[in-house]
Amino acid sequence: MIEKDLVGLKNKVAELIIVRASGHATDSQREYPQWELTNLELRRCMEEGVGGVILFGGTTIELEHRTNLIQQWSNKPLLFCADVEEGIGQRFSGGTTLLPPMSVGQIYKNNPDDAIELAENYGRCIGRQAKICGLNWVLAPVCDINNNINNPVINVRAWGEDSLSVSVLAKAFQRGISSQKVLTCAKHFPGHGNTSVDSHLQLPIIDSELSLLKEFELIPFKDLIDEGVDSVMTGHLLLTNIDAYNPATLSFSLTTELLRNQLGFKGLVVTDALSMKAITKNYGIEKASIMAFAAGADLILMPSDVEKAIDAICQALISEKIPIQRLQESLERRTNALAKIGAKEFTDKKQQLIRSQLDLSVIEEKEDRRLVNELVKQSLVIRNPGPVEKVEEGVNLIRIDSIMPNSLLGNKSPSLFLPENFGYKTTIVHYFGISPWRNNSDEPLDLDRFQKGPIFLQIFMRGNPFKGTRDNQEPWVKAIQQLQKAQLLAGLVVYGNPYLWQKIIEVLHSSIPSAYTPGQIYEAQTKAISTLFGNNNSLISIKDNFFQAFTD
Amino acid sequence: MIEKDLVGLKNKVAELIIVRASGHATDSQREYPQWELTNLELRRCMEEGVGGVILFGGTTIELEHRTNLIQQWSNKPLLFCADVEEGIGQRFSGGTTLLPPMSVGQIYKNNPDDAIELAENYGRCIGRQAKICGLNWVLAPVCDINNNINNPVINVRAWGEDSLSVSVLAKAFQRGISSQKVLTCAKHFPGHGNTSVDSHLQLPIIDSELSLLKEFELIPFKDLIDEGVDSVMTGHLLLTNIDAYNPATLSFSLTTELLRNQLGFKGLVVTDALSMKAITKNYGIEKASIMAFAAGADLILMPSDVEKAIDAICQALISEKIPIQRLQESLERRTNALAKIGAKEFTDKKQQLIRSQLDLSVIEEKEDRRLVNELVKQSLVIRNPGPVEKVEEGVNLIRIDSIMPNSLLGNKSPSLFLPENFGYKTTIVHYFGISPWRNNSDEPLDLDRFQKGPIFLQIFMRGNPFKGTRDNQEPWVKAIQQLQKAQLLAGLVVYGNPYLWQKIIEVLHSSIPSAYTPGQIYEAQTKAISTLFGNNNSLISIKDNFFQAFTD
Repeated sequence: MIEKDLVGLKNKVAELIIVRASGHATDSQREYPQWELTNLELRRCMEEGVGGVILFGGTTIELEHRTNLIQQWSNKPLLFCADVEEGIGQRFSGGTTLLPPMSVGQIYKNNPDDAIELAENYGRCIGRQAKICGLNWVLAPVCDINNNINNPVINVRAWGEDSLSVSVLAKAFQRGISSQKVLTCAKHFPGHGNTSVDSHLQLPIIDSELSLLKEFELIPFKDLIDEGVDSVMTGHLLLTNIDAYNPATLSFSLTTELLRNQLGFKGLVVTDALSMKAITKNYGIEKASIMAFAAGADLILMPSDVEKAIDAICQALISEKIPIQRLQESLERRTNALAKIGAKEFTDKKQQLIRSQLDLSVIEEKEDRRLVNELVKQSLVIRNPGPVEKVEEGVNLIRIDSIMPNSLLGNKSPSLFLPENFGYKTTIVHYFGISPWRNNSDEPLDLDRFQKGPIFLQIFMRGNPFKGTRDNQEPWVKAIQQLQKAQLLAGLVVYGNPYLWQKIIEVLHSSIPSAYTPGQIYEAQTKAISTLFGNNNSLISIKDNFFQAFTD
Repeated sequence: MIEKDLVGLKNKVAELIIVRASGHATDSQREYPQWELTNLELRRCMEEGVGGVILFGGTTIELEHRTNLIQQWSNKPLLFCADVEEGIGQRFSGGTTLLPPMSVGQIYKNNPDDAIELAENYGRCIGRQAKICGLNWVLAPVCDINNNINNPVINVRAWGEDSLSVSVLAKAFQRGISSQKVLTCAKHFPGHGNTSVDSHLQLPIIDSELSLLKEFELIPFKDLIDEGVDSVMTGHLLLTNIDAYNPATLSFSLTTELLRNQLGFKGLVVTDALSMKAITKNYGIEKASIMAFAAGADLILMPSDVEKAIDAICQALISEKIPIQRLQESLERRTNALAKIGAKEFTDKKQQLIRSQLDLSVIEEKEDRRLVNELVKQSLVIRNPGPVEKVEEGVNLIRIDSIMPNSLLGNKSPSLFLPENFGYKTTIVHYFGISPWRNNSDEPLDLDRFQKGPIFLQIFMRGNPFKGTRDNQEPWVKAIQQLQKAQLLAGLVVYGNPYLWQKIIEVLHSSIPSAYTPGQIYEAQTKAISTLFGNNNSLISIKDNFFQAFTD
């Protein structure tokens, strides 16, 4: 039963809060110190009863050490979650990084059976590796249907562009994770696919009628619920025809009436991060926390101020604005979820000690490697296999989002070293570099800024969060036309955004060696690049002077 | 005694080999796969008796896990070493990164007592953190005297530019490390300071007479030996007046006659890495290994092929080209060194299990932080404190060596975000970016490639290995003259190379806010930048749109 004293109440309410922490061990290693608690703060949170941690950054070894340590700071079994939609390696070095879900969606179009098997293996890979590292809750699958090609934040994170493929693949993924006794999360309810706005930056507005949602966006959620998904994440999305004032995260109509009552969801409801601008721009943390809880959420993710969030909810319970039974229900749902994955083991200190002795150098199994290779192979689009011409002097022009940190490019990266072997010297353009553009909308590339010679162009672009519409402002289609006109386009690869690729092939001469892959990881680079340069041994020969550019 | 059978002999010879491994847990995380063994290969080496590992890359948590795991693969106590001359953080994220030794050398000029205390604390910091991570041998102090301003590889790694300061500070450093029961290494015998060539790339030639060496280069080595340094690393340096044919690493005259007989060194002699080009360009690995061992080296560092190195030395012993007693002597020296630091603990599996339970989130102690701050404060040179003018539109122009990976710049880096707050938008120039240069030797910067407005210039340059003379080819002095002439230089910071700073101040107008620091780490950036921009609170206010450039 619920304690009536304030300390006891706070401890119970704290159990519903998920705080953000770095996966790194030390405070100085935190990548986003403004968002990630120090170890001292984190320990205090755990001692005050906070019930969950979402982790970002670090290595698998650190993560295992970290979850172990944080659990020791608490006297209750904790939820440890992470945004590892595309593999543990997406956030934690050492884990496997897969291709984005959209790669499976593309395979589904031609080989639905293969795709379903791949999606299940995809989930199993993430679930198994998550468990080794001490995570017990994976914030996936994404159940959004990406039906807006200008969607800046879902894009390749979606399993597809129609309700059937998303539903079928997300269910298969869910089976894979669940087989490893790790909790799952369908997100972002009621569907973030049909927006051209990133809720990290502002509140997306969706004006579909409920009846339309039921025929489209809600299908994957409903199917996942029927399949037994453990949690649903509500999104910062304003559904004007359902609740004209409050985003789904804070809306009783959406969370309780639609999700719980109409769709019959009995598991955990978790909000999307309350630290996101869609919320912080419009609500204080106290108000947002109370509203989310009152709306029907069980777990409050990343409140910008943990103390204030807890105190605000406590006050709402004491003043009976929110009935105390709501707290009891949420706590029960949390307990049930943990029981489902046998979380009692986590409270046994001896078990924890044994876990640390694992040889974590073998976190990736052979089947994971096969899965990566299969995803790469089956989702690669080769429009013209080349080979790209070897030249005396050319440019390997690479467009990336950010350089610091960037795990996609490094001294082992085929997109860098292979073209170097064929005479194309690497030049990387990125947000912090000298701009490649000039003020000429028809011929936007300032070619004087590059070395002379033909250009092998590689575009890494995939609607990353927080970037807003920045990507769309770069005139790559025009640039490609300009290069073709000047007979300077030696070849092209697009990594990530399928809609950019579609726009490009409308203008791209069929004579140009070119390829598209939904992935950006080394394996995707290797496959695309080695195909275009005529699959040969030079892939493994890396020039010494190339390595010198990296060594420090 | 030495076994006569080949397997037994190989196992003994293997004990003298130090192989290179990544500090990361998994094979796919290796940063230099061409130089770092896979886990399978590494395990095999350990099972065959290899006696030591040099580790590069990873985090402190990973390193602790790693040394523990590798030790379990062996049946003898292992040497675990690393090039952590400037702090554990130099190689392993999570450890403290200090300022380069030259910062202490600069402090020594005015405050010798302070500098000596700092150097001892410097050693203690590295020794303590090394031990926590499972390292038992630190490849420092550098005993080279940097008396060549064009030295591309020693530079700020030296403790000073004269024999006295290097000697005094290296001794203090050695006391600090030894106090933590961690082995030390004086390098690079007989002195790498007076070269303008990097032995990673080619063999430096030094034509000093022995008598001159004794009056200068050898002094710090002799003093360290008298102080009880545990090991000496011989360098790939051709001393034409002592051994006209063989570099010190492979020279009996230098290793045995000079180092052992004349200087009386009784500890471990280790070669510099045999994988370096100074060696591989001129010798096969079999020949180099035999020669190094015959010359008097006890330990062979990073042979490019471990099996071949072991077999070659075995054959030389069997054929009695090298007397078997040499092997016995080297093994004894190794055993003695390990005994000195109580390495028996390492063979006790139970002890290892206990080590894993450490809370490694507190590897850095308060005294380490104080040391960093003191080094930063005392070595900072402010020529004109500014403040730098706030502008509507300016450029924060940053020159760095490499972008991938680069631990110096990130979303927390003051050199990036602080100038942004004052209107200077960051543009980074680096080896893989669009060049800032044009073909005009008097006005080499192509200003059309930058945004309009005044330029706040930050140069990160410090003679990193493998870069050869590349740094010197960049005409920064001319560029500064050009910017001054165009009245576009808003301010300047040089991080690292003191000789570049000296050249710059010869032309720099005294009216320009400017600073030099030997360090490149965040703390050095913070101090330099916050001073020039008028030490105020904006240091902690980071614009949201700035963070968006990083998040992915």
